[in-house]
Amino acid sequence: MKIALAQQNFHVGNIEFNKQKIIQSIIKAQNAEVDLIVFSELAICGYPPKDLLLHDSFITKCLLAVEDLKEYSKNIGIIIGAPSVNKTGKGKKLYNSAYYIYENKIQKIINKSLLPTYDVFDEYRYFEPAKETDIIVHKNTNIALTICEDIWNVDKNLIYQYNPLDDLSLKQPLFVINIAASPFSYNQRDERENIIRTNCEKYNTPLFYVNQIGANTELIFDGESIVANKEGKIVCKLNSFEEDFRTFIIDNNATINIEKEDKGEQFNNKISLITEALVLGIKDYFGKSHLKRAILGLSGGIDSAVTLVLAVKALGNENVKAILLPSAFSSDHSVNDAVALCETMKVDYETINIEQPFQSFMNILDPYFANKPFDITEENMQARVRALILMSFSNKFGYILLNTSNKSEVAVGYGTLYGDMCGGLSVIGDVYKQDVCKMAEYINKDKEIIPINTIIKPPSAELRPDQKDSDSLPEYDILDKILFKYIEENKNIKQITDEGFDENIVKKVIRLVNINEHKRHQAAPILRVSHKAFGSGRCMPIVADYNFFY
Amino acid sequence: MKIALAQQNFHVGNIEFNKQKIIQSIIKAQNAEVDLIVFSELAICGYPPKDLLLHDSFITKCLLAVEDLKEYSKNIGIIIGAPSVNKTGKGKKLYNSAYYIYENKIQKIINKSLLPTYDVFDEYRYFEPAKETDIIVHKNTNIALTICEDIWNVDKNLIYQYNPLDDLSLKQPLFVINIAASPFSYNQRDERENIIRTNCEKYNTPLFYVNQIGANTELIFDGESIVANKEGKIVCKLNSFEEDFRTFIIDNNATINIEKEDKGEQFNNKISLITEALVLGIKDYFGKSHLKRAILGLSGGIDSAVTLVLAVKALGNENVKAILLPSAFSSDHSVNDAVALCETMKVDYETINIEQPFQSFMNILDPYFANKPFDITEENMQARVRALILMSFSNKFGYILLNTSNKSEVAVGYGTLYGDMCGGLSVIGDVYKQDVCKMAEYINKDKEIIPINTIIKPPSAELRPDQKDSDSLPEYDILDKILFKYIEENKNIKQITDEGFDENIVKKVIRLVNINEHKRHQAAPILRVSHKAFGSGRCMPIVADYNFFY
Repeated sequence: MKIALAQQNFHVGNIEFNKQKIIQSIIKAQNAEVDLIVFSELAICGYPPKDLLLHDSFITKCLLAVEDLKEYSKNIGIIIGAPSVNKTGKGKKLYNSAYYIYENKIQKIINKSLLPTYDVFDEYRYFEPAKETDIIVHKNTNIALTICEDIWNVDKNLIYQYNPLDDLSLKQPLFVINIAASPFSYNQRDERENIIRTNCEKYNTPLFYVNQIGANTELIFDGESIVANKEGKIVCKLNSFEEDFRTFIIDNNATINIEKEDKGEQFNNKISLITEALVLGIKDYFGKSHLKRAILGLSGGIDSAVTLVLAVKALGNENVKAILLPSAFSSDHSVNDAVALCETMKVDYETINIEQPFQSFMNILDPYFANKPFDITEENMQARVRALILMSFSNKFGYILLNTSNKSEVAVGYGTLYGDMCGGLSVIGDVYKQDVCKMAEYINKDKEIIPINTIIKPPSAELRPDQKDSDSLPEYDILDKILFKYIEENKNIKQITDEGFDENIVKKVIRLVNINEHKRHQAAPILRVSHKAFGSGRCMPIVADYNFFY
Repeated sequence: MKIALAQQNFHVGNIEFNKQKIIQSIIKAQNAEVDLIVFSELAICGYPPKDLLLHDSFITKCLLAVEDLKEYSKNIGIIIGAPSVNKTGKGKKLYNSAYYIYENKIQKIINKSLLPTYDVFDEYRYFEPAKETDIIVHKNTNIALTICEDIWNVDKNLIYQYNPLDDLSLKQPLFVINIAASPFSYNQRDERENIIRTNCEKYNTPLFYVNQIGANTELIFDGESIVANKEGKIVCKLNSFEEDFRTFIIDNNATINIEKEDKGEQFNNKISLITEALVLGIKDYFGKSHLKRAILGLSGGIDSAVTLVLAVKALGNENVKAILLPSAFSSDHSVNDAVALCETMKVDYETINIEQPFQSFMNILDPYFANKPFDITEENMQARVRALILMSFSNKFGYILLNTSNKSEVAVGYGTLYGDMCGGLSVIGDVYKQDVCKMAEYINKDKEIIPINTIIKPPSAELRPDQKDSDSLPEYDILDKILFKYIEENKNIKQITDEGFDENIVKKVIRLVNINEHKRHQAAPILRVSHKAFGSGRCMPIVADYNFFY
C-alpha cells in the first residue's frame, strides 16, 4: 500500500482555503498512484478553532467541506481531521474526528478518545470523548486510526483511564495512523519521538504520524511528521516549519520501503529551533491576518534588536520599520547601536526624541506631584510616551506594533503596562533573557549583524540615570534559572532552595511572578516556544492570596 | 436532624483565612446544637482556584486545613468542599470533593461526577470525574451528597452521559445536599431554581443547596443558597450578595420545619441585581487584593458616571478620585455634568486639560504625519494621553484605575487600546449601553444623583468636533439587540435577520465584533453579570478567518 502524508499549513476558520489546499494534495497523490492520503487533525478548519466550534454555521461549513472531498476519493482513500456531530443526545455536541473517505463515500468516522485539557489545550470544552474504538479496513488492510492525544497515555504520565490502542491492537492492524495538531516547544521533539517509539514497540506496529505546520496566534506547529517502523525506529521525518508531502510504501509484512532514511532535521539545537519557530510565528500572524508591515521601538538593547532581526526574516526588510525613541536618560551608544543595526538590516527608521511630550506631562502633573520624588511613575511615563508614539504610527500607517519584552521581564513584571508591554504580538515573550542573548549570538554566527556592544553591555531600561536591570533584579543567570524551575518545572520554594539557590532571592522572584498576574492578563499574545508559556496555557488567578507559597 | 447552611465569602488561595472563617461557623453551629453543617464547594481554597491547583504546596495546605477541622467535629457533622488526591495512578491527579467529617474523623470523601468545562468553567483541566457514587450516613440518616454540576444534567441540556442522583436515589436518601460555587448572572436565578425544583420532583427528596458569595476577579457569586422541600417548593433562600447562616430542622418524614417561608430576595429585577453584583465585584476586587483606592476618568458621559457611583457604593467616597480630562473637543456641559456628579457624590476630583501634551505629540509627529488628514490616529492619541495621566496618578499615589467601557463598545471595538481601554478592572464591560442607561435611572430612582443631562444627551466620545457614537455605529437600541443575539444567544446572521433586523447592519455589527478579538485580548478583567461575558468564558481565536459567518 502506498501512503502519502500531507503536512500542511491551515488557516483557522478559512474552510474554503483549507479545502482547496487539501484537494490539491489529493490530486497530487492520485497522480502518484497513492492508495491512502493522510491529513492532520481538524485539517478542514485548522487547529485550534476554539469557540468557533460553538457556532452552527462554522460546523455546517466544516461538514459540507468534508462532503466536497468525496468526489476526489474514487480511487484513493482519504483520512482527514474534522469535527463531527454527536447525535446521541447525551454529552457534548461534537466529536473531534478522523473521517475515512473512499469510493466517493464517507466510509467511517473515528472519534478521538483522549481529549487533552491542560496547558494550552481545552478540548473537553467542545468535544465528547469516544466511548468505543473501531478499526478501518482500507483495500483489505486493517488500520488503527487514532487522533493525536490517543497515543500519548503511555509511560509514567497516565492522565487518562485507558488507551484506545489496547483495544485496537486486538484487531491486528497492519499499522497505526495518528493525525495530530501538536504544537511546537523546544523540548517537544524528544518527547514526541519517545511517545511514537513507545507505541510502536508496545503494539509492535509501524506508525504514520501527520502533524500540521504553521502558527495560529500563539501556537506554532512545527510539522516534523514521522514514519516509524514496528521496532520503533524513526525511518523518516518530514520537514520542520514548512509544508511537506511524502509517499511511502508499506508491504503486507508491515515493512516500510524507503529509499533512504531522512530525519529532516535542519535545526538541531534549542536556539536554532526557537529562532525558526518565532520567524514562522511572526509570518503566520501577519499573513493569516492579511497584514504586511510591522513597526517596533528600537532601544539599542538586545531584546528589540533580536525582535527586529526575526521580523525582517519573517516579513522582509521592506516591511519592517524601526523607531528610535531616545530620552534624556538614553546613552549615545544605545542610539548608535540601534542605527547600526537598522543600516545592517536595511530597515527604514526614524529617531524621535521623547523629551518634549515627556516634559509636557511633567508640567501638567507638576501641581499634583510637586513634592513627590522622581519614582517609577516617571519611568512608566517615558515608556508610555514611547508606546503612544509607536501606536500613532501604527494607526496612521497600518503597521502592527511588535512587542519586544522577553520572558524574564514578563515573569517578574519588569515592564510598563500600556508602555513597553504594548504590541499586537509578543515575539520573544516566551524566551528567557539568557536565551535571547544566545539567539543574538546565533544570529551573528556568520557575521556581526547585531552590534557586539548591544550583546555585551549590561541590560538597562534607561529610564533614570545610570539604571541597570541588576539594580532591582537578580543577575539574569540566577533569575532565569529560578524562573524556569518555578514556571516550567512547577517547583516550590523549598525544592528550588534545596538546589542551591538563596532562599530570600527565590522568595523575592516567586513573589514578583505572583504579584504581576494582573499585568500579564493585559499582555499581547505571546508566541509559545516552551512547554509553559505565559498566556492561555497558564491560568493563575489575579485576585488571590499567594502566601501559601512562602 | 438540625442542619446549618453556611454561606460564606472565601478568598482564593488564602487557606488559613478561609479555615478560620469555617471554624467560626462550626462553633456557632455547635452552640445552636446543629447536627450537620454544610459549606460550599472548594470552600477551603475559594472558587475558582484555577492553576493554583497544579501546585503541590497549595494542595498540601488544603489537605492540612481539612485535617485541622477534624477536632471541631466531635458532636457535629461537617460537609466541606476541598480538593482530594486521586491515588489510583490513572487520570487527573485531583478530585473536586466533598468531605464528610464527624467524630474527629474524615468519615468519607465524595467526589464530583460532572465537571463543567464550558464558558468560564474549566474543571476537567484539573479534576478526574468520579466513576462511582456513594451515600453518606450521618446519625443513621442516608444523605445523598452532591457537588454543584452533579445535579445540573437534567431537562433538555444533557451534556453528560449520566446523573449521579440516578444511582444515589436507589439508596433512599432522606434528602440531597448540593455544595456549589455557582457564579451570578442576571438570569442564573431562574435557571438555578428550576434545576433544584426539577431534582426534588424527579427524586422526591428535599434539597439543601449551599452556594458561596463574593467575587473572585471577574466571577461574582451571589449566594442565595436554597432549601427546597420534596415537592420542589423553595421554602427558604439565604441572602443575596452577602454572607448568611441559617439552621433548619428536617424530620424523619423529610419534612422541613421552618418558622416562616423566606425567599430573601432583596433585588427583584435585572438592573437592581446587576447593580448589586457589580458593587460586590468592585468591593472584593479591592478588598481581596489589599487595595483601597480607585481612580477613574470622568467624561461627563453616562458610562463613567455609573462607574463612579458603583465605585463609591463599594469603596466609600473617600476612596474614589475622579479626574476630568477635557480636550478642545469637550463640550462645556460635559465638564459641568462631571463636576456636578463629583459634588453630589462628595468625591475628590481634579480637572486637567489634555491640550498641552496632545499638542506636544502633534508637534513631534508633524514631520511624519504632515500631509495626512486628522483621523482615528489623533482620536486615539487623545484617549492615550488621558490614560497616561490616569496611570501616572495610579502609579504615584497607588490608586487602581477603573475602566469605564460598556459591553456594547467592548463588543464592536469602539474604544482605544492603551487609551480608554486601560484599567485594572472593567466595571461595566458586561453591561450593554442600554442597560447602563437603565442603571443610571435606577441610581436616580429616589433623587437626581447622576445629572439628567448625562443620561439624556446623545452618547459621544468627543474626540473630534460634533462627534456622536451614532456617526459610526447603529443606534444603541438596534446595536444592543443584535449584539445580544450574536454573543449571548449564539445566533447567526440568517437567524438574526429573520427576526427583522437589516441584513447589512447585522453583518456590519458581527464583523466589528469579530475583527476586535485582538483588542479584547488585552482588555482588563470584566466583572461578569451575563451568561456570556467577554473574558475567560469566550475564547474566540485572534488569528482566524471569520468569513464563514457572512
